[in-house]
Amino acid sequence: MKLRPLLAMTSGFLAALAVTTATAKPLSQEDLSVAEVLRDRALESSDAYSIVESLTVEVGPRPAGSEGDRRAVAWAQEKMKALGFDRVYTEQIEVPRWNRGHAHARVVSPFPQPLVVSSLGYSVGTPEEGLTAEIVEFADVSELIEAPADKVRGKIAFINKRMERTRTGEGYGPAVGGRSRGMRAAAEKEAVALMIRSVGTDSDRFAHTGMMSIDGVEEPVPALALSAPDANLLEAMLERGQPVVVNLDVHNQRLEDGPSFNVIGEITGREKPEEVMIIGAHLDSWDEGTGALDDGAGVAIVMETARMIAELPQRPRRTLRVILYGAEEIGLVGAKQYVEAHQDELDNIIAVSESDFGAGKIWRFDTRLPETKFDIADQMMQLLAPLGIERGNNQSSGGPDSSVFVARGVPAFGLYQDGTDYFDYHHTPNDTLDKVDPEILKQNVAAWVVMSFLASEMEGDLGRVPTEN
Amino acid sequence: MKLRPLLAMTSGFLAALAVTTATAKPLSQEDLSVAEVLRDRALESSDAYSIVESLTVEVGPRPAGSEGDRRAVAWAQEKMKALGFDRVYTEQIEVPRWNRGHAHARVVSPFPQPLVVSSLGYSVGTPEEGLTAEIVEFADVSELIEAPADKVRGKIAFINKRMERTRTGEGYGPAVGGRSRGMRAAAEKEAVALMIRSVGTDSDRFAHTGMMSIDGVEEPVPALALSAPDANLLEAMLERGQPVVVNLDVHNQRLEDGPSFNVIGEITGREKPEEVMIIGAHLDSWDEGTGALDDGAGVAIVMETARMIAELPQRPRRTLRVILYGAEEIGLVGAKQYVEAHQDELDNIIAVSESDFGAGKIWRFDTRLPETKFDIADQMMQLLAPLGIERGNNQSSGGPDSSVFVARGVPAFGLYQDGTDYFDYHHTPNDTLDKVDPEILKQNVAAWVVMSFLASEMEGDLGRVPTEN
Repeated sequence: MKLRPLLAMTSGFLAALAVTTATAKPLSQEDLSVAEVLRDRALESSDAYSIVESLTVEVGPRPAGSEGDRRAVAWAQEKMKALGFDRVYTEQIEVPRWNRGHAHARVVSPFPQPLVVSSLGYSVGTPEEGLTAEIVEFADVSELIEAPADKVRGKIAFINKRMERTRTGEGYGPAVGGRSRGMRAAAEKEAVALMIRSVGTDSDRFAHTGMMSIDGVEEPVPALALSAPDANLLEAMLERGQPVVVNLDVHNQRLEDGPSFNVIGEITGREKPEEVMIIGAHLDSWDEGTGALDDGAGVAIVMETARMIAELPQRPRRTLRVILYGAEEIGLVGAKQYVEAHQDELDNIIAVSESDFGAGKIWRFDTRLPETKFDIADQMMQLLAPLGIERGNNQSSGGPDSSVFVARGVPAFGLYQDGTDYFDYHHTPNDTLDKVDPEILKQNVAAWVVMSFLASEMEGDLGRVPTEN
Repeated sequence: MKLRPLLAMTSGFLAALAVTTATAKPLSQEDLSVAEVLRDRALESSDAYSIVESLTVEVGPRPAGSEGDRRAVAWAQEKMKALGFDRVYTEQIEVPRWNRGHAHARVVSPFPQPLVVSSLGYSVGTPEEGLTAEIVEFADVSELIEAPADKVRGKIAFINKRMERTRTGEGYGPAVGGRSRGMRAAAEKEAVALMIRSVGTDSDRFAHTGMMSIDGVEEPVPALALSAPDANLLEAMLERGQPVVVNLDVHNQRLEDGPSFNVIGEITGREKPEEVMIIGAHLDSWDEGTGALDDGAGVAIVMETARMIAELPQRPRRTLRVILYGAEEIGLVGAKQYVEAHQDELDNIIAVSESDFGAGKIWRFDTRLPETKFDIADQMMQLLAPLGIERGNNQSSGGPDSSVFVARGVPAFGLYQDGTDYFDYHHTPNDTLDKVDPEILKQNVAAWVVMSFLASEMEGDLGRVPTEN
C-alpha cells in the first residue's frame, strides 16, 4: 500500500503531485465507512449461493443461442427484478449456433479399447461411417505447425501438451494453443482429425471442451479433446513403438446464426445516472456441465453485489450496471457487440470489472488505472486487505468480457480468485454446483461490494487508460 | 502384539497352552529373516506398477466373457510365464454375459436438462422409443420395499441414499442395498424404472455401475445409477415441490452365457507341493474404466509377490498359488466355480487371501484363524508393524473371492488397504491408472511377501476355522 503512490510519483511525478495536493484522499471517510458496513454484512449474510443454485437447478446448461440460453435469459430478468434492481432489460445479439451430437473414439490397434473424448466447440463430425487413421503425436501446437505436411497428411494429429496447475491460472495460456489453433493447423496439413490432451489440470476421465478458431478454415476436420487419463493411455501405447490406430465416430450439427441476449440490470445513480460503473459475468455456459463455476458463480456474485448496494438507504452517486454477457464462451460475442453498439457512451463508463474465474477465494486486487489514480485503489485496499487480499498489478484486463472495454481505454478493476482448482472442472461435465462453497462466495461478495460501491459512489473519475495501439 | 495371545489363552486355554509349550515360536528365526529380506527388497525395488500399467494399457476394460476378458486371460498367462512362475494354466468357467449400450436421461419438466447416468450391470433397456415418467423418491431401499405399490406404480423409483466415506469402506454395506436389491423391489411394485444415487463417495459427474440381483425377477425394469451431482440436482428439483418428470432412453444387450477363465500360476512347493497357499485378485473389471484400482492393482500386487518369492534361492516348502479369478464383479462366479470344482482339495489349502480394495496403503492385518494359531499372526506382525500396519481382528473374509473358501472353513489373511478414496473411483470410467501410486504399491508388495512367504514356508498348518452353518 505504501509502494504504489511512490511508484506513481516516480513515473508520473507532476500528475501524481497534482492529485496528491488537490485531493489527498479521493474516497471520503464516509464512503469508506459505508463500504466497510457493506463488506461486513456481505461476509455475514450475503447469499450469492442461492442465486447460482437457482441458475444451475432451474436452467442448467445454456450454450449460446440454445433453448437453455433462452431460459437463462428469462431467468436472469426475473431474478434481477426479484432482487430489487431499478431497471432490467436485454439487448439482442447475433450468435453462431452449434449442437453437440456424439463423439466416440476407440483404439483399433495395437490395444483395442475405448477412449473418452469430447468434441471441441463447433467441431464438424466425421463421415457417417466414421474414420480410422493412425495417430501422430506432437508436443504442442507449434510442433504441429512446423511439421512437414507429409508427416501429418491422412493421420490424426495428437497434441499432447500438459497444463501446469497454478493459483493464477497462468498455465492456461501456454496450453490452450492446441485447442484454439490446432484444428486449423491440422486441416491445413490435411490431417483427417485433431485430438488434443484436454486443457485442464485434473486427472479425471473428463474431456475439456472449449472454443477453437474456425473462421476461414476451408476444410475443417473433426477436433476432439481427450481426457487426461486417455491422453496418458495413447502416450503409453505410442511409447511402445507400434503404430496406434484410432477409430472416430463424431456427429455434431452447425446451425444457422440466431439471437441471444446480453441481460442488463441497473441500480440507478442518484446524482450522475448517466455515469456508469459496469460489473459483469457471462450468462452462457458450455453444454456438458451446468456452468456452476463457469460462470454461474460469477453471475451470482455480481447480482448479489448489486442487490446489497440496492439495499442501502440511498442509491450510489452514479449508476451501477450489471451486465450478464451472452456468448462469452464462443468468443466474447456479447461483449464485442455491446461495445460496438455503445461506443459513443464509453466515456461515461467509469470502470469495468468481471467475475469469471470460478468460485475460489479472492486473494489479489489488480487494476488498470491511470497512474494518477492509484490512490483510489490504495484506499480500496484498506477494506480489502482484511479479507486476505493483497495488492496486485496494474495490468488487469478486468476479465474476459471486460477486456473488450479495456481495449478502448476504459479503466478496470480485477478481483482475482484463487484458480488452483478451476481448471480441474473448466469446460467439463463436472462443472456442477457441488464445486461451489457458499462461505467462499461470501468472501467474494464482500470484496465486490467494496469495489463496486466505492467506484459508484466516489467523487471525480478514473480517467482513461492509454491503449497499446 | 501382546494382547492377542492373552485373549487366545483366555478363550481357548488348553489348546493355546499346547501350542505354546510344543512350539513356542511357530515360525523359525530363519523364516523370519528371509521374510525380512524379501520385505525390504520389495520396499526398495518391487515393481507391481509396471504390471498394472501393462494390464490397463495393453488390455483395458475386461468385463466377464467379453473380448477384453479374453485378451486379459491371454495377457495374464503370458505375464505369469514371463515373471518366472513354475506352472501357468487356466480353468474354464461359464459366465452370464451382457453388453452395455447407451443410457440417456433428461429431466423433461419442470426444469429441462440432461442427467448423467449409467446402467447398472445386466440392466434391461427401455422400449426403443424411450419412456417418460414421474420421479418418486425414497431415502433407501427399505423405504421402497415398504412403500405401498400405488405410490410406485408407473413411476421411476429414485433411491437417494448417500454413502459415508471411511478408511475401512464400511459405508459401502449400508449404501449398496439400493443397487443390489432396488431393481427387484421396483419391478415388484410395477415401477417403470429404477434410478439410484451412485454408491460412491465422490462428487464427480460419474455414475457408479455395479451388479444387481436379477435372478428370478420376472419383469425386470431398467436400472440406472445417477452421478452424485445429478442426484443432488434431482433432489433440489423435488424439494421445489412440483412433479419432476424424466425421460429415459436406455439400450443394453443380454447375451448368451459364455466361457471365461480363472488364470492360475504357481510357485511349486519344494517339500509339500500338494499343500497350497492361495493368493489372488480378480482379473475381470467393469467396462467403463480400465480397471486399474478394481482390480488391476490387486492383480499386480499378487503377481509381483509371487515373482519375488520365485527369485529366492529355493522354493518355499509348499506351493504358492496365484489365482486371478474370472467374473468376480458379477457375483464371485470364478471363485464359486473354483471351489465347487476343487472341493475335494480344500483341506490342502492352508489359507487364502486376496487383494481387491484398490491401491491404498496397507494399514491393518486381519486374520481368520483358529485361536490356537494366533501366534503365527503375531510373528508376522513383527515384520508388518514397521510397514505401518496394525493388528486387526479375526473376522477377515480374506477378500470377496476368498470368502467362498472361508465359507468352507479355509483360514484367511487380510491385508487391509486404506480405502478412504476407493469409492471415489469404484465402478466408474474414472478407475484409471493415474489413480495408482507406484510407491504405495511397493508398501503393499512388502506386506504381501511377508505374509505369503511365511504362510508357504512355515512348519505345521493353520487348521480349519469353524464356519457358522
